[in-house]
Amino acid sequence: MSLIAGRVESRIHTVLAGQRAGWAAEQPALAELFDGLDAFVAAGGKRLRPAFCYWGAVAAGATGDEPGLLDTCAALELLHAFALIHDDVMDGSATRRGEPAVHIRFAREHAAAGWAGESRRHGEGLAILTGDLAFVLADGLLDAAPASARRLWHELRVELVAGQWVDVVASAGTDRSPALARWVARYKSGRYTVERPLQLGAALAGDDILLAGYSAFGAPLGQAFQLRDDILGVFGDPSETGKPSGDDLREGKPTLLLALGSEYASGTDRRLIDRVGSPDLDDDEVAELRSLFERCGARAMVEAEIERLVMQSERALALWAIDPDVRDQLHALAACATARAR
Amino acid sequence: MSLIAGRVESRIHTVLAGQRAGWAAEQPALAELFDGLDAFVAAGGKRLRPAFCYWGAVAAGATGDEPGLLDTCAALELLHAFALIHDDVMDGSATRRGEPAVHIRFAREHAAAGWAGESRRHGEGLAILTGDLAFVLADGLLDAAPASARRLWHELRVELVAGQWVDVVASAGTDRSPALARWVARYKSGRYTVERPLQLGAALAGDDILLAGYSAFGAPLGQAFQLRDDILGVFGDPSETGKPSGDDLREGKPTLLLALGSEYASGTDRRLIDRVGSPDLDDDEVAELRSLFERCGARAMVEAEIERLVMQSERALALWAIDPDVRDQLHALAACATARAR
Repeated sequence: MSLIAGRVESRIHTVLAGQRAGWAAEQPALAELFDGLDAFVAAGGKRLRPAFCYWGAVAAGATGDEPGLLDTCAALELLHAFALIHDDVMDGSATRRGEPAVHIRFAREHAAAGWAGESRRHGEGLAILTGDLAFVLADGLLDAAPASARRLWHELRVELVAGQWVDVVASAGTDRSPALARWVARYKSGRYTVERPLQLGAALAGDDILLAGYSAFGAPLGQAFQLRDDILGVFGDPSETGKPSGDDLREGKPTLLLALGSEYASGTDRRLIDRVGSPDLDDDEVAELRSLFERCGARAMVEAEIERLVMQSERALALWAIDPDVRDQLHALAACATARAR
Repeated sequence: MSLIAGRVESRIHTVLAGQRAGWAAEQPALAELFDGLDAFVAAGGKRLRPAFCYWGAVAAGATGDEPGLLDTCAALELLHAFALIHDDVMDGSATRRGEPAVHIRFAREHAAAGWAGESRRHGEGLAILTGDLAFVLADGLLDAAPASARRLWHELRVELVAGQWVDVVASAGTDRSPALARWVARYKSGRYTVERPLQLGAALAGDDILLAGYSAFGAPLGQAFQLRDDILGVFGDPSETGKPSGDDLREGKPTLLLALGSEYASGTDRRLIDRVGSPDLDDDEVAELRSLFERCGARAMVEAEIERLVMQSERALALWAIDPDVRDQLHALAACATARAR
């Protein structure tokens, strides 16, 4: 897994450096567009999507050395950068990977230089473009992929946009049903983190039969991944996650944790739950909400659901006749996606 | 020209309606994602990019009935929708095609419903996603195109992002050189409006020899198109352009008009020029700037440059041995791009 992560990082850096050289010679201001994206990718991340794609391909018979496989893995990581950079603008999140979010960094540069116009508008504009660039370059890396892989890639991207749309609309609204929260977990990140990368791997290896098996393994695992993310968003250690804890609550994110907390809260707890979605929610209130989620059993129920989903994915994995070493890698990857602290 | 415009509109509507059906059944909130983009495309636009692609293909030997050609024309119009929707967020523009910009419409809905969070953030988030959807669907339409066309498509998209980046950075900064303004005009819209669509048409028709000829015709014409746009942004009639006049001045856009005005202004005119880029620039100041651009000759110089560029493109057009009817169509299209009032 660490092997493919390093190769992906170096492939992305090479793509960006190649583009940067020509463009910065045209216009010096363009250096920062490429450098900004390069720095964002280099700042970290678990590289889960490339890893699922890589092992999905190897399990389906790829040697792992195919250049097209590396390009697709790099494309998945660039697509992830696009999603995070745009999401942070949409959510107004200030921190990512332990650093100021891209839009915050550019807004601060604008303010410090005393440039014309509004700093927030400027910072968000440059972040949107940094995300757009990641999106375009990701797509360029898929250009030589077989038609079946490009079809999956296309579906994955529409799902990502649709999932994020429902996330933003639900964050503003009042529907706190578990059904909606589970749907968002599935589309917003479950599919594009696990199921689709695995399927892309199979398609690159020319194996269309494994696609259904990969859904049986990947769909519950992707859902479990997002539920873990939701728990870390509230209970995680910011020094590990690189994000302030409680932002999901300030933004009113439609998580299963919140949905179950809302179902079981009453009395003064009800008033506290109604504060979720307020940008001015303070640290004391976040701490009280944490305690509420513990007390009413919402956290335990989400943990139980993660466990159930992981078991379901492991049963699917056990059914395939694949190389035991590859199975071990997929097993380790599943643990990394769902039992993580960051 | 009108023929391809109608076919493109109906193709885009069909693509969106097909996606909408499945997604709205999954989550009712998704209907508005597809409807919003559909309404934006239907609200108007000159469909210049599809027209240049279509006639570029026909001049290169296409019949005009190839499904791949229609799909590429529709992709260009969707990419244009992406660019406009994101640009309006980045520029903070309130009006487009005579209607509230996408981000303004969604922000107003949020405010009227009294939803949680900040209305501006919500509106801009949904507009970013509407643009992202246009981008993904555009790309899907190019999926079956030949490799040479996809290469051009890829370059066009990087150019678009790079051009917009320099536009945003230059709007905030103090470099008002004509060289920078001409560069932005070329990359931000000249290339993706004329030269690249023509070349895409040639690539779809399987003619790689015409590519250089299309640059000789398309590059000056694209530049002239953007210079006309800059003039309309300051002197245009809002009932024709669908945008308030003077926004380019409030946003400090690095146009050739402003660059030449800056070069020739002195005394009190200098102080007026220094107000460009201030979001609170009022209508009286915009009127004074208009008069300044007339008085100092900046407007006349830009008009002369448009004329020179159009002549240059016509000389290139006259050199090709193509069907006289097709030449007439390209000639009419060039006039439509550069002598327009909207």
